[in-house]
Amino acid sequence: MAASPHVPFFDPQSPVFRAHEGGKLGVHATKPLRGREDLALLYTPGVAEVSLAIAADPALSARYTARGNTVAVISDGTAVLGLGDIGPLAAMPVMEGKAVLFKHFAGIDAVPVVMETGTVEELVEAIARIAPSYGGINLEDISAPRCFDIEEQLSERLDIPVFHDDQHGTAIVVLAGLLNAAKVLGRQVPDLLVVVSGAGAAGVAVTRLLQRAGVRDVVVCDSRGILAAQRQDLTGHKSRLAASTNPRALNGGLGVALQGADVFVGVSGGQVPEEEIASMAPRSMVFALANPTPEVHPDVARRHAAVVATGRSDFPNQINNVLAFPGIFRGALDAGATQITEAMKLAAAHAIADLVEEPTVDCIVPSVFQEGVAEAVAAAVRALAPSATRKRQFER
Amino acid sequence: MAASPHVPFFDPQSPVFRAHEGGKLGVHATKPLRGREDLALLYTPGVAEVSLAIAADPALSARYTARGNTVAVISDGTAVLGLGDIGPLAAMPVMEGKAVLFKHFAGIDAVPVVMETGTVEELVEAIARIAPSYGGINLEDISAPRCFDIEEQLSERLDIPVFHDDQHGTAIVVLAGLLNAAKVLGRQVPDLLVVVSGAGAAGVAVTRLLQRAGVRDVVVCDSRGILAAQRQDLTGHKSRLAASTNPRALNGGLGVALQGADVFVGVSGGQVPEEEIASMAPRSMVFALANPTPEVHPDVARRHAAVVATGRSDFPNQINNVLAFPGIFRGALDAGATQITEAMKLAAAHAIADLVEEPTVDCIVPSVFQEGVAEAVAAAVRALAPSATRKRQFER
Repeated sequence: MAASPHVPFFDPQSPVFRAHEGGKLGVHATKPLRGREDLALLYTPGVAEVSLAIAADPALSARYTARGNTVAVISDGTAVLGLGDIGPLAAMPVMEGKAVLFKHFAGIDAVPVVMETGTVEELVEAIARIAPSYGGINLEDISAPRCFDIEEQLSERLDIPVFHDDQHGTAIVVLAGLLNAAKVLGRQVPDLLVVVSGAGAAGVAVTRLLQRAGVRDVVVCDSRGILAAQRQDLTGHKSRLAASTNPRALNGGLGVALQGADVFVGVSGGQVPEEEIASMAPRSMVFALANPTPEVHPDVARRHAAVVATGRSDFPNQINNVLAFPGIFRGALDAGATQITEAMKLAAAHAIADLVEEPTVDCIVPSVFQEGVAEAVAAAVRALAPSATRKRQFER
Repeated sequence: MAASPHVPFFDPQSPVFRAHEGGKLGVHATKPLRGREDLALLYTPGVAEVSLAIAADPALSARYTARGNTVAVISDGTAVLGLGDIGPLAAMPVMEGKAVLFKHFAGIDAVPVVMETGTVEELVEAIARIAPSYGGINLEDISAPRCFDIEEQLSERLDIPVFHDDQHGTAIVVLAGLLNAAKVLGRQVPDLLVVVSGAGAAGVAVTRLLQRAGVRDVVVCDSRGILAAQRQDLTGHKSRLAASTNPRALNGGLGVALQGADVFVGVSGGQVPEEEIASMAPRSMVFALANPTPEVHPDVARRHAAVVATGRSDFPNQINNVLAFPGIFRGALDAGATQITEAMKLAAAHAIADLVEEPTVDCIVPSVFQEGVAEAVAAAVRALAPSATRKRQFER
């Protein structure tokens, strides 16, 4: 294929494009097909017995098909990384990459499903229709606020776990980091004054999980400032968020919110001036998670804050969803859980935090490649699975 | 898991169930993930470059994602094998088996998608929405007459090949066998009097492809007898079929149709009495394809017919779709074909027939495991691909 001169970044010889040649995923048979006898077992006529058995007892599906270990990574390409609405075809490399991580870290067979976008109803309808193919659904890179309704409606409708990773994966790892940061600094999590910058998928989920973890004072800001009861421009999830946060009834911009705050969680992509970070309480904690450009450069933040975390691998304290989602799904699939509950998310955050034996300001979360992370998260999730109707009876 | 006493055929220790333990398919990464550097290439931040390139030039998707080699095997479980409407979960073992065959015979990464059934519109809508995930769509075990409209609407709407294997796979291999049977018997295909028993997915497709191959006299029977203009009970595809077949305007049952006929193609599952086979023309050809019980036992048919084919592997001349579909999709994917045309189906049938160097009455089609079948079919299909907008530039 000739180079496409109008495509930015396209260099077929660069390491990234060479690594993507032909895609990153393949499918393979797990059973040998050596000749007619195997064919008669794996396909007709033998397969009919298995189909009839599952028709009579659908629970056998988890044991006799790959479905019990399969997760769909589903996106409509409307909010891909920080790139925005680039469509399903362009979203595919990200979904394939996610599937690679599922396999590598948790042995899960993940298959990417990229969809033409549509209304909430249309997407829910299509996903629900194909849901029998999978043991769980990982929603990915779907724009807010649609992502909230899509996840909620699918969770209600389906009896398999549905998990929007941009929301909950981020929230779980942020909470894990905050638990250890508070420990290092000798603080009690419920007492912390927290500011969340960004009221999209991640901001909403971080806020809710921190509240679930006991934090009483969270102030959320969108691009127009603090979500406050007085704001006339808030609807839907933002107006609900305004009602359940900001107990001191602050008004104004992010700068107002940050004065005297203990924790900043940036999931917005905006920039925060150094003086606003400087105005936070002594020994503050900064989670500047925008990627690749954090809301405040970690070296700058470190002049004022006691703990600084980013989404980047080239600074300490990388807040990376991959610490959470493989283990979350591994635990849920193993337990035959029908959903990922709030209690499971909390338990996952504690499990991740506990993997750091002696937290320091520069080590509040495990490394992405630390051994045993997914296993520990899976064990915590499995222990709480509320509706374990199917038990995993086989090992892979 | 304890044995389920109410499930027929369920014996966890039997070879079939042991072969299905944990399912038959897995997903794997095709690129190494050895540490942070690989992570940065395969996932963030590197993957963003590939996503942006595809967003700017969607044709790059075939090169830089696995999509170009991926086929969805899609069923709603309404007509699974001869088992009928057993639902999506019970259909899954069959779809996994099919995916195993795609990989084994053509190196194609096939992923099963089983769906809750619904109206034609609902199924088309859902399949079209997820279509960007795949390089082709193999429809499977969807009941007639819905399968005709579903395939037609999807083919019109999508720019990737859509192929209902129960229709066209069967038709292609029947035609391949008929070409060689006619050769062995010194007959010209267009002159043959053909009777097709069954007006479902396979019967309709066999009829159309034989007509396309030049056969002038096809008589189609359903369970009530010959599809004829006088029949008042015919609607939709059966009334169209009646209008385009039965040139001698026969009336009556299958017995009437078979008197003096040269070829019987059974895709109905019904039984045909020996005397009706005996009433066919001298040196007749019988394709009794119902599985596992042919419409007439091959030993009985052989008393009267010169060539007998079945769907079974334990008799000569097994008419098996696996001779066709792997190569069909391999050729279509390699050529970037946007559909499987009638010309491609005809070419595939000729390619399969030509693989038998010296046909005999007991060898009119290649063995399923004969080397090179898929490659030959793929080459024939590739040569005819009409809309090859994307060329395959890499080898797997």
